[in-house]
Amino acid sequence: MELLKQRILKDGIVKPGGILKVDSFLNHCIDVGLYNEIGKEFRRLFDQNDITKILTIEASGIGIACVTAQYFNVPVVFAKKSISKNLDGDLLVTQVKSFTKGTVYDVIVSKRFLNSSDNVLIIDDFLANGMALQGLIDLCNKSGAQVAGAGIVIEKAFQNGGKIIRDMGIRVESLARIASMDANKVVFED
Amino acid sequence: MELLKQRILKDGIVKPGGILKVDSFLNHCIDVGLYNEIGKEFRRLFDQNDITKILTIEASGIGIACVTAQYFNVPVVFAKKSISKNLDGDLLVTQVKSFTKGTVYDVIVSKRFLNSSDNVLIIDDFLANGMALQGLIDLCNKSGAQVAGAGIVIEKAFQNGGKIIRDMGIRVESLARIASMDANKVVFED
Repeated sequence: MELLKQRILKDGIVKPGGILKVDSFLNHCIDVGLYNEIGKEFRRLFDQNDITKILTIEASGIGIACVTAQYFNVPVVFAKKSISKNLDGDLLVTQVKSFTKGTVYDVIVSKRFLNSSDNVLIIDDFLANGMALQGLIDLCNKSGAQVAGAGIVIEKAFQNGGKIIRDMGIRVESLARIASMDANKVVFED
Repeated sequence: MELLKQRILKDGIVKPGGILKVDSFLNHCIDVGLYNEIGKEFRRLFDQNDITKILTIEASGIGIACVTAQYFNVPVVFAKKSISKNLDGDLLVTQVKSFTKGTVYDVIVSKRFLNSSDNVLIIDDFLANGMALQGLIDLCNKSGAQVAGAGIVIEKAFQNGGKIIRDMGIRVESLARIASMDANKVVFED
């Protein structure tokens, strides 16, 4: 998606440790016009898939998922990273390892909101090592829902998450795939 | 907002401890069409206010803020509840006490995304004791931004947060104000 790539080149900042900061337009301060274009592009890519639900994970996936859902006319479900008083009843739970924090956390969805009649589009802002995405796929599998695919805004294609998920037979569409990056240059695949 | 009140009466569930579960349409599984109507209503209420930015707090405020921002053509900034590798540079930080968890947590916004030229609409899903909202107001004050007001989806008017915030001189517009609730009945104000 050319508009997104140009924005990353213009406003993205590469920090030591393989960090790409896109917080001025994607995941802290949000350009909602850009989210709209992202949503339209996901609709174009998954137009033939009869999506019934969009699944994402808190926090930065939620806005992208909600804006995208307008183009599919389906509900959004966002997986939670902690049990709250608002979560009760039968829960689907999986464990996700955080490489950056070195911890393992639960990812949780109420059973009421994912089931075997669903055909799910998973949406997230980043795909790097693929741990969060694998967790969301696992929640779909546990619920009996079908995974139509994953729509990712930025894939760090130099990490192995994309390969792992695609090797599982899951369709992954990333709007910007970064082949390499350093403080001077971001290089996209293709 | 009649559509919202009817939805709360139809699908909201009151649990012991003053919990109103609206997770089937507002903050776990999301009816994005309802978010659109909420966004339009916030625009109507704050139409004359020359809003430059919408501020919310992760996680469940983000989707409402993003959909609402489409009706204002302004960016969304969401305050974070923990420091991550993506947060660096000069930060605005305030402390918020969680009554439900009995803890105090930091609420953080990068200084780059709020400043004295901003006229901010704060958006959140719930207003109860008002602690989170006071934190967001404090971040605006620290940045020099003006607070045009707060747009709240559901106010528990039987708790004191709304009074505290309004007594500060802040305009608070809540789309559904709950006067009382128990397992059998939700009663709205007005």
